[in-house]
Amino acid sequence: VKRLRIGLLGCGTVGGGFVALVDRERDRLRSRYSLDLTIDRILVRDAGKERRGIDPALLTTCATEVIDRDCDVIVEVVGGVHSAGTYVRRAIRQGRHVVTANKALLAATGSELFGAAAARGVTIGFEASVCGGVPVIGVLRRGLAGDSIESITGILNGTSNFILSRLHEGLGFAEALACAQELGFAEADPALDVSGQDAAQKLRILAGLAFDAPIRRTTVVGIDGITPGIIQNARSRGCVVRSVAEATRVAGGIELRVGPKFLAATEPLARIVDETNAIVIRGRAVGEIVLSGRGAGSMPTAAAVLADVLDISCLT
Amino acid sequence: VKRLRIGLLGCGTVGGGFVALVDRERDRLRSRYSLDLTIDRILVRDAGKERRGIDPALLTTCATEVIDRDCDVIVEVVGGVHSAGTYVRRAIRQGRHVVTANKALLAATGSELFGAAAARGVTIGFEASVCGGVPVIGVLRRGLAGDSIESITGILNGTSNFILSRLHEGLGFAEALACAQELGFAEADPALDVSGQDAAQKLRILAGLAFDAPIRRTTVVGIDGITPGIIQNARSRGCVVRSVAEATRVAGGIELRVGPKFLAATEPLARIVDETNAIVIRGRAVGEIVLSGRGAGSMPTAAAVLADVLDISCLT
Repeated sequence: VKRLRIGLLGCGTVGGGFVALVDRERDRLRSRYSLDLTIDRILVRDAGKERRGIDPALLTTCATEVIDRDCDVIVEVVGGVHSAGTYVRRAIRQGRHVVTANKALLAATGSELFGAAAARGVTIGFEASVCGGVPVIGVLRRGLAGDSIESITGILNGTSNFILSRLHEGLGFAEALACAQELGFAEADPALDVSGQDAAQKLRILAGLAFDAPIRRTTVVGIDGITPGIIQNARSRGCVVRSVAEATRVAGGIELRVGPKFLAATEPLARIVDETNAIVIRGRAVGEIVLSGRGAGSMPTAAAVLADVLDISCLT
Repeated sequence: VKRLRIGLLGCGTVGGGFVALVDRERDRLRSRYSLDLTIDRILVRDAGKERRGIDPALLTTCATEVIDRDCDVIVEVVGGVHSAGTYVRRAIRQGRHVVTANKALLAATGSELFGAAAARGVTIGFEASVCGGVPVIGVLRRGLAGDSIESITGILNGTSNFILSRLHEGLGFAEALACAQELGFAEADPALDVSGQDAAQKLRILAGLAFDAPIRRTTVVGIDGITPGIIQNARSRGCVVRSVAEATRVAGGIELRVGPKFLAATEPLARIVDETNAIVIRGRAVGEIVLSGRGAGSMPTAAAVLADVLDISCLT
């Protein structure tokens, strides 16, 4: 049995889910992969807050106490760009493998971080950063590595899709948004979701993996202008409205577009409702591959983080 | 640029597609992965037959001329169990990594071959053996490795699904089968497809990856008993008939079932038509993940073989 020591940065929705998942899967991982996972130290904002199922002795408010320990992998789930970036850079400098669920960080400084990791001979796992539990990063990096990707089309923001699903049921925009917030899908400030910027960040990460070409144009339109009249109009044409993220080849590179579209009710993405995410990848050899599942949430995202940790365990 | 030498066993539908794909993707693989793939030697039945785009000097009718060369990877796409098994065993003994698209071989002797490979320190890639271009093996082995799988449900045989799709359009069974054969989906002897045995072989491979538990029961029912009356009966209940393969947990292990089912028209698998394959994987943490795409065909299967070859290139 090989021991793998994890330093965990952040213990919120995803971090807490990760601790619970590692606990729950411990016996299976030991018998299946001969792997004994331990979480050695956990960075939190408030070390005094009680957390069910977590040994208080593991908690610290000092990031270097986590990063500078002799762990095999640093899991970054604090979110945000500034502190998270400082932590990940330090972990890489110390020669630690990193797993992150931080889409904003990768969108802002991904190429710098991947360059630093390659130079130091460590890996950055980021399956959890796009579409939570849907393993689209692995599918693009490995499963479809043998093929030339022609386009990626997806429903990448669960909150927007949840709101649009409610609008099709007759709710107004404000009601639908309030409903999403009540159920915990939307942030108190839902601007990043409804503006399309969240989907655009995810699309940029996917396009970076899928295409060997520069991004030439990006167009992002939110769903905040979608009125009951527009929904009715779509209906009358046998369509539904979805916020669609598309990456396609254009002269000299790639074009990214995010925005509401009328989709014929028979199209695969038209059938994706509520907070589900879906991605259609078109490859020259494989044709159309469709992936769908829960794109967010504590446990699905934690499962993606753990999959990356297990992948890295083969390297240590 | 790292050179990777491939020995190819078989140059039929999949083998020929693989040669064409390696040719087409050569520049991309060189610039993206700094990898130069060469196919060193190709086992064929008839070395005199002209093959477009293939250097006749590479062809041989002697398997050991391919296996005993100093290649990095042996790709086995001859099919069948007897000769293919002899070749793969020899390749493993010689310390070669193996990539195979041979579902029947793995269903018959998989655990023996994986054991031999592990003992010799080589890898067997088998993404192409189940559902062609749909990267379900990689998703189960890696993407969902962090989660406990609760069930797998799928449409795993494209020929059966194509025939059922035609039955829903009013064709009789014999006509639908002839149509599938004409389009090249069904073999001249379609017994393995319509009996459900092909889907059962694939399900067994998937269940072996997903569950750490023995298979307790297997029930396989073909689609040959599906009459227009049964289709009408399903329709009248708002359902469609699909051949569904299911692996579920039961006391003491796993139960496998393959057979026709009435599915409500709103279920994800009810919407899968023609020769498409689809798999619904239910994980305890991630919930339901759906994957679909082309489960067979020369180029999709070749792309899965190439993805495995690229994965192995990281090991050499």
